[in-house]
Order: sequence, then C-alpha cells, then structure tokens
Amino acid sequence: AGRGLPQARVGILGCGAIARKGARAIARARNAELVAVASRDLHKCQRWCAELALPLSVARLGSYEALLALDLDVVYVALPTAAHAEWASKAAAAGRHVLVEKPLARSAEEARQMVLACRAAGVQLMDGLMFMHHARFAKIRAVFEDRFTWQPLRVTAAFTFKATPDYLESNIRVRPDAEPLGCLGDLGWYLIRVGLAAFRWEGPESVATRLHAANEAGIPLDADVDVYWPEASDELPAWAMASSAGDGCKGQAGTGPAAERLMTFHCSFLHPWRQWYEAVSLNGKVVRCRDLCIPQREQVCEFELEQTIGTTEIDCVAVADRTVVPTLDCAQEVCMWERMASIAASGERDPFFEDV
Amino acid sequence: AGRGLPQARVGILGCGAIARKGARAIARARNAELVAVASRDLHKCQRWCAELALPLSVARLGSYEALLALDLDVVYVALPTAAHAEWASKAAAAGRHVLVEKPLARSAEEARQMVLACRAAGVQLMDGLMFMHHARFAKIRAVFEDRFTWQPLRVTAAFTFKATPDYLESNIRVRPDAEPLGCLGDLGWYLIRVGLAAFRWEGPESVATRLHAANEAGIPLDADVDVYWPEASDELPAWAMASSAGDGCKGQAGTGPAAERLMTFHCSFLHPWRQWYEAVSLNGKVVRCRDLCIPQREQVCEFELEQTIGTTEIDCVAVADRTVVPTLDCAQEVCMWERMASIAASGERDPFFEDV
Repeated sequence: AGRGLPQARVGILGCGAIARKGARAIARARNAELVAVASRDLHKCQRWCAELALPLSVARLGSYEALLALDLDVVYVALPTAAHAEWASKAAAAGRHVLVEKPLARSAEEARQMVLACRAAGVQLMDGLMFMHHARFAKIRAVFEDRFTWQPLRVTAAFTFKATPDYLESNIRVRPDAEPLGCLGDLGWYLIRVGLAAFRWEGPESVATRLHAANEAGIPLDADVDVYWPEASDELPAWAMASSAGDGCKGQAGTGPAAERLMTFHCSFLHPWRQWYEAVSLNGKVVRCRDLCIPQREQVCEFELEQTIGTTEIDCVAVADRTVVPTLDCAQEVCMWERMASIAASGERDPFFEDV
Repeated sequence: AGRGLPQARVGILGCGAIARKGARAIARARNAELVAVASRDLHKCQRWCAELALPLSVARLGSYEALLALDLDVVYVALPTAAHAEWASKAAAAGRHVLVEKPLARSAEEARQMVLACRAAGVQLMDGLMFMHHARFAKIRAVFEDRFTWQPLRVTAAFTFKATPDYLESNIRVRPDAEPLGCLGDLGWYLIRVGLAAFRWEGPESVATRLHAANEAGIPLDADVDVYWPEASDELPAWAMASSAGDGCKGQAGTGPAAERLMTFHCSFLHPWRQWYEAVSLNGKVVRCRDLCIPQREQVCEFELEQTIGTTEIDCVAVADRTVVPTLDCAQEVCMWERMASIAASGERDPFFEDV
C-alpha cells in the first residue's frame, strides 16, 4: 500500500501458504491495503499474521462471515478449491470484488455459476494467475494477438515440481475433498491458460490425458495432457500468408496434409522443478519462456522470440534469428493486486477474466 | 582429405541430397579421401559430381557392383532405407567398413541382420548420425554417464520441419517402397538416439505413437511418440542420493508414487523447423539443447546445464544455477568421417555402433 492513491480495502479468506504471497503483494501494491484476514481457527489466523509481521491495524478474524460483514472493496478467496464457489458467491452477494485462487473451481459448470453470480452482483471476478499480470506477458500476448504473423500451431509445456513425502501425504492439493484435480488443477490451470492465449482464446476441441501416477484417493499426481484445437478457420489474405512465410528453405506446406493443432503438456507433483513453454506459429515463429509461473528474477525477466531462416547449403548449419526480449523491474503478484485495486477504484470491470 | 596422414579410401553409393553433405565432409576430413561415386544412372552420377566440383580423380560409376569391386576401405551407403540391408551386407562381404545413412533399416530384425553381417566380416558398421560425433555430444554424454549425478527421468524433444508440397509428393522419404517409416524413421531416429543416451542405453519397455497425419500410402508425416522405460533398477548408495538431491526447496520424493520414466517427442514433416531436447534427472539436473541435428554455428555450439535450487521465501522468485557450455570449432559431419577413417586405418572396430 502506498500513499496518495485511493486505497482498495482488501480482506483475505484463508491462511494458507499461497495467501502469504498475496498479503506481501497487497502490502507492496500502491493502491491496496490489507484490512482483515480470516480463518476458521482464530489462533491459526493470529499466528499467521504474526509470522508475516502484519500491523495490528489488520483485523484477525475467526470466521469467514465476520470478514464479509466488514467494509471491504475486494475479497481474496485463498481457500481450498472445493470452497471457492461458496465463498466467492457469498462475497459477490455482499458486493465485493472477488479474487479467487486457482484453480477457480472443480468443474466448468461450477466456474460458470461463479461468473454468473459475480456478473449479477456487478463485481469483478478474477483468478489468481499472477503471470497474466506480468508486463512480460503483455508483450507475449502482443505476439499471439497479431493475426498476420501468428497462426497458432503447437504449444509444448511443462510445469512440474517434486513434492515432499509430507506434502503428498497431507497437503490440501492432494485431498479429494479439497483439490480433486490434483496436479491437473494446480499446475495444468497455468498451462492451459498459456495454451488459450497462444490460440487466441479459441476454445479447444478435445482433451486427452495420460495419467501416469495418482494417490490412493485417485488424485492425479503425474500426467501428460494433449489439448486439440480444430483446424484453423481464420483465412488470411494470400499476401499475408506469403509475407509471413518464414521457413524460407523448406517453404510452406500449402494445401495437403496439415500438422495437428495442439498443446501437449506435462504436469506433475513428482518431478523436478520445470516451468517452461514453447509456442510455435505456422510461419515458423517461436515463443519460448523458461519461467512461466515464478520468474527467475524480479529485476529482469525474459522471453525468446525465434524465427527460423532455414539451413545453409548442403544442410550444414541451421540459421535462426533469435531475440531475447527483456522486461525490467516487474513483480507480477504486485501487478495483479494493483490491477484488481484499480478495478475496485474505478468500478470498471474487465470482462476478460469472466470470459476465459 | 589432408596430407601426411594415412588416407581411408571411401566410395559413395547413391547420389541423393544427403550424400552431398557426406562428400563435402570427406573432402574436409584429414584422413579420408573420396575415390568413387556410384549411381544406377551414370548421367545422374556425372551431373552430381560436377555440381559438387569433385576432382576428376573421383571415379564416376553407373553401377553399385562396380563400386564394390574397387579397392576401398569404407563404403558409404546413402541409398533409400529399403536398400540399406542389401548393399550394406554386400559391402561388408567385400570386406569394406560400412557407413549407412539413417534410419539404418526398416525393422529391428533387419538391423540385427546387418550387424551380424558386418560382425562376421570383421568390418565396422556405423549409422550416419552426425550429432553423435560432435565434440559437444561427448560433453553431454559425460553428464548422462555419471550414475551419481544423473538418474534419467524424462526427455522431451522435437524434430520437425515443413516439407514443400513437392517434397511431400515425391521425396523418397514419403514413398513406401523407399522409406516406410516416414517422419518416424527420418526424424525419430535422431530423437530416440538422444533418449537412449540420456537413459544410458537402457532398452525401453514400450512405445506409444499418436499419429496425427499420414499420406495416402500410410506413411507417417506428423506424430507424437511416448517411449517408456521401466522403473529405475540401479540402486545408488544412500549418500549418493542425498548429496545429489538438488531440489532443495521441495526435497526428494523418497518412496511412494514416482513419476513415469519416459521420453515424449514430436516428429513431423508438416511443422516449422525445430530440433530441441530437454533431458531431466531425478535430482533436478536438466540438459537442454536447441540444435540437436544441425548446429546453429560451426564456430561455437552450445548446450545448457541447469540445476534448480528452489524458490525463495513466499515463492516469489525461482532460483536456478544455469551454465551454458560452449564447444568451439567443430563440424560434426567431418568428425564422423574422421572417426570412420581412423577405424579403417587402425582396424579397431568400435562395438558401440553395433550395440545401439
């Protein structure tokens, strides 16, 4: 929170690990202030606030209802996924904008209900995907949104980490009553968002999952997922196709058999840390990001843009034009909260977060 | 060919595009000289030799048999895959070392016959995978071969290019009588070699292919392939596991559910140019290569070695130790021919190329 700007008053529901990052980000946001934190267990809430050294002006509450009764602009629902729909809807009904941790809901139908509830109440619904708010991602989206130079063809991605035995035993993300989607919900939620962005928010046609490991309750722990998009429908004028033909050496395929348009990704709780994606356009343009979820640095954050030129005479050297695009001084979690607070201040909702 | 060293006498069977690269590499090799080139069509052979400006001392021949009758040390079989077994075996029977273009054969059984034929004749059999001979790959193999710091877990890879309509219509790689394996043989052959190297030449357990496109003759043009390895059997002493535990923040999974050990790759004739792989070890060590088949430069060629450290407090930054390892001044196609020529000169066969 800074001075001089109108401050959005924020309350946090739930005292989990992820909410700690939220609390710190709200403190750093120039236009938001943390007003209250609630847990079902008041002692847990007090301990959590003390660990984060939150000022005593932040109310410590032992019930979610008590928090919703306060004068707030935004409620941050940092509860297990199974509780998202109930508390997001209650917060919306109380007239609060709602930021919900990912995954938003347990099913598409549940998510739709939440969208409708927020729309009916005239409040913003946003999910907690911080990377969407990074200034880097705005640059990447600008690449994806240019219909003349980006014809989405394939996204390959991985978001994995190796959970401790403790985590696999007891963390809420592997409990069916809390997070029934396991690694698909926790990690796949990020990846599919990247895929949707690369495919310009077109809805996919089908999904196939190869589940490699699950716990005794059937919660996915390690899986590969293929997401298929239908054949490209947006016809471009011939001049645009010609001028964007980048694979100079081998040429365009033209008519005839075409490569499948798909995203294929690996998400896992049982695998060393990885968080990368590669998106490829029909014309040979490639976007690569190695730290999609948690940036490797706050001071400078990069992505790669590559255009294959072709191979030299007798195929001895492959020539590519590669650019590393830097973005400076951006803390995505802070950007997210500043965006949410500015929506709360202006009252102008961003329908984007409902449509996705 | 250079002076001062004993020169291995080489003959080329077949005047295709790939053999042009071979002819140039033989000319650059310090210990090999090109003696003869043969095609079934003498005029084609003469034209091909003239295009490459080969000296007139290189014999132009109109039959493969005529070439085998010459005094040669090495025969380079640059024919369609369907003809590999016949001519490799004949060359071996004539006492010549044999370098065969990839894919080696149409089936594992056919490959086994070729290995046996060469072994019986006491000659070297080698396939034309140039990247194996790059000095960079020796460094990468050194990473893979260290049992204490490399426990192979997953390889992700792509080798794709966009063929022209002409190519898809008429190239031998899409004709069932010549290259029945299509993109799986032409491109997958490289990728599976990388996977075998990363898994220390352990045999895989099973393979599953998702074929996305084929031509009218059923030749694969675009496919995703999963190759599964059995659970790790090589038990390491506890101290080695402990000291190699790199994922400091999240810790080792220990017992309990384990991630699948597999390679997943995309190979395609219908897709913009890509030629990368990522190999991951259980301890969080990662090897990345962006130009596996045709290097981007001859002067300096790189790969990345990364070790995840973990995420900082409150998960705001992901810390990784990344090293880019350069290899200077290496033309892999020349290295391959120098290796083959030195085998011919010494008479010491390298059993490695038979076993793979």
